[in-house]
Order: sequence, then structure tokens, then C-alpha cells
Amino acid sequence: MSRKTGIGIIGCGVVGSAVARLILDQGAELSARTGVTLELRHVLVRDLTKTRPLTLPAGILTANHADLLADDQTEIVVELAGGTNQAMAMMLAALHAGKDIVTANKALLALHGPELFAAARSAGRCIAFEAAIAGGTPLVEAVRRGLIANRIDAVYGILNGTCNYILTRMLQDNVGYAHALSEAQRLGYAEADPTLDVDGTDSAHKLALLASLAMQQRCDVQDIPVRGLGDIELADLIAGAELGYVCKLLAVAKRCPDGLDVSVQPTFIPRTHPLAGVLGPFNAVSVYGSVVGHTLFYGPGAGGMPTASAVIADLIDVAIGNARRTFQCIAVLPDQTGPATHRPPGENRMPWYIRLGLRDRPGGIGKVATVLGEQGISIATIVQHESFEADHDDAVPVVVTTRPAKEHALQRALSAMTDLDVVIGRPVWIPVLDKHSE
Amino acid sequence: MSRKTGIGIIGCGVVGSAVARLILDQGAELSARTGVTLELRHVLVRDLTKTRPLTLPAGILTANHADLLADDQTEIVVELAGGTNQAMAMMLAALHAGKDIVTANKALLALHGPELFAAARSAGRCIAFEAAIAGGTPLVEAVRRGLIANRIDAVYGILNGTCNYILTRMLQDNVGYAHALSEAQRLGYAEADPTLDVDGTDSAHKLALLASLAMQQRCDVQDIPVRGLGDIELADLIAGAELGYVCKLLAVAKRCPDGLDVSVQPTFIPRTHPLAGVLGPFNAVSVYGSVVGHTLFYGPGAGGMPTASAVIADLIDVAIGNARRTFQCIAVLPDQTGPATHRPPGENRMPWYIRLGLRDRPGGIGKVATVLGEQGISIATIVQHESFEADHDDAVPVVVTTRPAKEHALQRALSAMTDLDVVIGRPVWIPVLDKHSE
Repeated sequence: MSRKTGIGIIGCGVVGSAVARLILDQGAELSARTGVTLELRHVLVRDLTKTRPLTLPAGILTANHADLLADDQTEIVVELAGGTNQAMAMMLAALHAGKDIVTANKALLALHGPELFAAARSAGRCIAFEAAIAGGTPLVEAVRRGLIANRIDAVYGILNGTCNYILTRMLQDNVGYAHALSEAQRLGYAEADPTLDVDGTDSAHKLALLASLAMQQRCDVQDIPVRGLGDIELADLIAGAELGYVCKLLAVAKRCPDGLDVSVQPTFIPRTHPLAGVLGPFNAVSVYGSVVGHTLFYGPGAGGMPTASAVIADLIDVAIGNARRTFQCIAVLPDQTGPATHRPPGENRMPWYIRLGLRDRPGGIGKVATVLGEQGISIATIVQHESFEADHDDAVPVVVTTRPAKEHALQRALSAMTDLDVVIGRPVWIPVLDKHSE
Repeated sequence: MSRKTGIGIIGCGVVGSAVARLILDQGAELSARTGVTLELRHVLVRDLTKTRPLTLPAGILTANHADLLADDQTEIVVELAGGTNQAMAMMLAALHAGKDIVTANKALLALHGPELFAAARSAGRCIAFEAAIAGGTPLVEAVRRGLIANRIDAVYGILNGTCNYILTRMLQDNVGYAHALSEAQRLGYAEADPTLDVDGTDSAHKLALLASLAMQQRCDVQDIPVRGLGDIELADLIAGAELGYVCKLLAVAKRCPDGLDVSVQPTFIPRTHPLAGVLGPFNAVSVYGSVVGHTLFYGPGAGGMPTASAVIADLIDVAIGNARRTFQCIAVLPDQTGPATHRPPGENRMPWYIRLGLRDRPGGIGKVATVLGEQGISIATIVQHESFEADHDDAVPVVVTTRPAKEHALQRALSAMTDLDVVIGRPVWIPVLDKHSE
């Protein structure tokens, strides 16, 4: 009763080789479980001579794109090469050749999702992308199908394992950002060039895709304000911990009366929130639905095998015909929905953490408090710390947390603070996740 | 392009009325999102005269089972009446009448799942049961479809919100079990008769179903050793917290070389494990897969609206045809798999927490340590506490944690301890969740 489905993989890097290995090694077991026999027919690479982590049967490896496209028995193309321009061209060519697509390429879907989804729709094919957000965690289908009864009010995501590993490590080992980053690179949790991870770009790609799906509004990546880990110091993680907060690079999409609030930025999360317990390279997404309330999905956000787990799930779903029906029936993808209405910038209202260096002289705290008061910002806590750094002998670190206030009021207050003669340097500011009603 | 699907609901209690309300109030929105128009045709109740939380359109409410069965336009029957005998008969009748089934009835599926699934299969119908485990959390489809590439090595679940609420409340408010239970009842988190929740039966039903699905072995509820909350005292929660543990009623199914290890019992979880952060009435399940590693699913485990969220997801999945394909293709349900091989009782090896009352005289701790040593059990920590209770003036509470040891060795040691003249009463023992490699 087994149905054979031909597979072509584009790319044989960490994820591509993991998918190929699973199909080759566990194909029989998968077939017994699902009635689908995945047949690996092609693996497309740029350079045939390169050494690879696995040996493929003869005739599978090819450098010729046409081998996949012309093969009628290759029904599903798995795009795992990454990048955007060439991947886009290959995906469109595969759709035109009548193939369904499975991909983990979040950058491509964030930038060109609407066009690709529309192309798949007009070709009568589907694009499955479980692996593109939160790696192996089955989040996409949970949001799209499992929570279909809900209007999603908010998603809060830890979507980049590299950043979460660095933040976890800094606090656990009492080390600075640079040291934690090099540890992450040594252990394979960060790339040699980690820029797109630590500057928040990767999280923004995933958020654009996730927010579009969850909010059923087309959310473009260029409309997401992004702040990376660059400004975060160990001093802030320690001061936050004293206040009961854990810092995460948080991707947020929240439905507000005046539009969608989306952002990627380091955020303090109260220790009692389940996202605060997400440590190391793990990802997690809190989803608040109008009917279900709070749900959370946790798992490895990257890595060859975890990502391959999601790719294989999509392959089975496409092969038995469910993925195409979901793609056709459930009208939540960004080629089907209107563009997002974004909340005007600066209007997001939340509590804030501020750390500043104060000259050790009378009246300093009073001036800072006055500046906040002038912007209508109430202080929740104020703590004067021991000096964090030896080379600022006359600077006293002061940590202030505020009651919920709008970001533009905060930014005006920060500018005014910077101009105060008692303040040394520019204050550090981090938003605090306000309690979402459960 | 909308497809109309007729729905009959059996039962109009908390969940039944929530489902009916969602179909009536949000049907148009759902239809726009999914292409499926759910048409509520019947709500079957025992007593037509009873006051209900919602007003149904004329002609919907009926006390006559035949109204549902004879109506060809009722394509899906939603069984939400609970109970087992009558629900079983009604479900079989609905299947024979050509209806698909959606249900939240974990007790029925735990006790008669294989028979019901087989009946659905031979009738060419399907049974969808997302709502039967972990309420609104889309766990069933995540395990069945999202993690299909994996051999599941272990599931650890907090599956009963009442118990989790009680345990959370005891520690947070420093109150005893009885007080926390009455608070749970007052707030609607516990039934007037909470027996099946607090004695672990409800968790065992859910575990039987979840373990069967995840392990792909038919796991019968009578083979699950169950221990409820009855023995747990505030003193243990406090002593555990000092050791870095949080107590949860944990449902476990774990693949071991000598068979499946399944149980429901109060268990100490290290505070760094994400399950430890699951507070109040929430449920969560950690799933360890051979390919993906550790994933976790969190959400409300009960309540009308959360459960209705899962029921509606199933209804859409059945209506568009995906549920039936999943039911037919993915061979993981307990009518399709062999019976579980269980690990022999007493063979489970884990660290243990022991609390005992010691007479305040020299040599006591030495005798206890000797008894453990005789059973080959190593002590990890030993703490002599201040007396927890005022009425045992001569008893000194001692808390011991052990290195991993087999349960039958522990039980022999506990018996021998109870016989010691220095030990007052019977020692309390709680297993500690050993770190599962991530």
C-alpha cells in the first residue's frame, strides 16, 4: 500500500545532508509509519568535488538544476541551499515544473513569500515551510491549523538560538558578550560570521513570516524595527536578574487598537513567565489566542537534525496530500491577506529598564527623576549600584525601572538625561515585557 | 467557494456550550479563514428543560439521539458528554451512521480507544481527539504529524491542571493541601468531587492515550502505576525547593532497553527544566525525539473555551478532509500497533528524595545511611531540618536525596528504615526527574 514519492534536495550543507541521511537511513521505518516511501532522487550542489558528511548512492548528486526539473518522478523539491536570489529562481522554476516545495529558507520567504505563495497557488502546488521558524519545533502547523479557531492577539518569540545561547552564557558564566560569542562559535551555536544572528536580522525574517501567519496580515520585514544584542552588557543582565528579569532577544507581534506592534529587540522578561526559562540554544514562542489563551511551543531552533525533523514532517504532509489542502483551504498566508496596519512608531507602551552612569555628587538622582517626570513617566524602582567598572571611578551606576510608558516619551527622556551634566555617557534602555493576561 | 459541514454536538456542558457558541458567533469568520462553514444542526442533551449558559436557535436542542443519527447532513458528531458506557454506544452508533467523530473524552479513548479507532477505520470514518490531551494545546497533531520523523524516546507531561494548580498554590501561599484544594474549587480549577483529578486517574487516562500515540505501542491504562497527590505535604514542597526542585504530578512514558517505563506520580523536577516553570492550572508536555531532541508544548489543559479551541481545529481538519487522511495513512494509533512491552516493576532507576522523622538521639542518621548503603543506594545530599510540625517535638525532620537507584532497592530501604527504632512513622519518598540528555 506504500506510495512512492520522489524527492530532490537543493543544497547539501548541514540541513540538506541531514535530510538526505534520514531519507536513506530511516526511509523504511518512515514508510511503515506513514504509507509514504520517500525516494531520494537528486541532491543538487554547486561543487561536485567537495567533501561531504555523507556518501550518497551513485547518480544522486548533481550540479545540474535541469536534472531535478526535468525528472517527472521528482514530485517534491526541498530547497535548503539558503540565500535569496538564486533560491527564488530555483523555487519558481520548480513550481513551474509542477513540483511542490518544502523549504527552511526564512530569509527568502520573509522577503518574497507573497510572490512565491501566489506562484505556487497559480501552479496548483504548495509550499510547506515548517522548518523556517523555530527549527524542529512544530510551530507553523500549530498556529495555522491547531489554533485556527483563534484570533491570535500576540506572539512573543525567542527565535534565534545563537542570541539565546550568548545571553544565557553571559549570565551563567559571568562573562562579557565577546567571550560568550566566541564560546558559541567554538561549540557550533554561532557561525563564523554571526552578524545576521546577533544583529537581529534572522529573528526579523522569522518574525515577518510568523506574524503574517498568526495575525493574518502581510507583515513585511522592512517594517519591523530591529535592535540586536550589540548594546547589551553583562552589567544589565546582572541588574535585571536582581529585579527578577531575564533578558532575551524577543520578537514580538501584538495586535493593538491602533495597529500591529512588531519589533525585535532585547527585552527583559519577568522570571515567572515560561519564556524566561528558555535557556541555551533553544527557541520558544508564546502564542496568545482569543479562544485558547496562552500556549507556548519550545524546541531546538537550528541544527541539522532538528531542522530535518521539520522538513521530513512537511515531506510526509505533502506526500499524503494534506499540505496541499491546507495550503489551498486555509487562507492565512501573506499572498491571501491584506498588508498589515502598523501601530505608529513610538506608540508602544511598556515598562522600561534604564541604566545610567551618574556623577557621584548631590542631586543627581533628583535631576534624572525630574526628567522622567517631565515626560509623564512614573518610576517603579530605582537602585543605585556598586560601580560595575573600575575605570569610571566617579560614575555611580543607577538602574531605574518605570511604569508602562510610551516609547517616544522614553526616548525624549533619554535624550534629556544624556544632556544632564550629572549623567555620564548615554543611558542604556531595555523594554520590559508587560504581563499579557493569561 | 465555502463548503457547508453539518455538526451535531452530544452534551451541552462547559465544553459543549463553548463549542456551540464559537460555531454560532464566529462561524462567518472561520468560514472566511478556512472555506468551511460549520453548520450547527443538533445539540443532544439529556434534559431539555435545564437552564443552559447559551440560547440555541430553535430546533437545535434535542434529547433524541436518533435526530443526529438520522440526519444525513450531520457529517460530524462531536462527543462532549463524557462518561464511558453511554458515550461508547453513541460513538459506535454515529460511526455506523457514517459520521466522523470529534471528541475530548480521554477516559473513553484510554479505555476503549483501540476498539473505537478500529470501528472508525472499518466504517471509513475518522476519530479526531486533539482536545483529549492537554486541552487547547495542539499536542496530538504535533506528536502525530509534526514529529513523525522521530522515534519518541520519552514524554514527560503535566497533564492535570487541578493538581498543578494545587501544587503551585501550596508553595506560593505556604498552605497545606486541603486549603489549596478548596481554593482550587472556589476558583473553578477543581470539581466539587476532585477525586479523579487528585488521585491521578485523569492523568493516567491522558497518558495512556499519549503514550500509545508517541511510543506507537498500545499502552493500557491499567498497566500504568498511579500515585496521586494524597501523600504530598507542604513540608516536602519546601524541602524540595531548598534543593532546587519543584514538585509536579508527572505523567511519564519512557522507552528503556527492557521495555516502556510508564507512570503517573508526584515527581521533583530540577528548577532548570522548562517543565518546572509550568505554574497554576497550565499543562505542558516535554517530548524527546530521536531526531529533533527536546520539544515542549504548553497551554491550558482544561476549561470550556481552551478545549473548544482544539475541538474547532479538529472540526476544520475533518471538514477539509485532512483528518481522515491522517487517520488512514499515519499508522500510529493503538488499533494499529502492538501492545506495549512494559519494563518490569521496580526496575526504574532514578534519584530519590526521602523525608523521615528521626528521634533526636545520637546515631540516628548513621542507621539510616547504613540501611541505604545495604541496598546499594548512594546518598547525594542529606539535610537535617528544623522541625516542621509542632506536635512531634522529639522528631527531627531529615531530608535525604540519593544518586540514581532502582525503585525496588528504594522500597526495600524504606521498609527497613520504617523498622528502625530511630525512625518515627513511615518515610515520605518522591522520585526526582533525572536529566534527559538534550
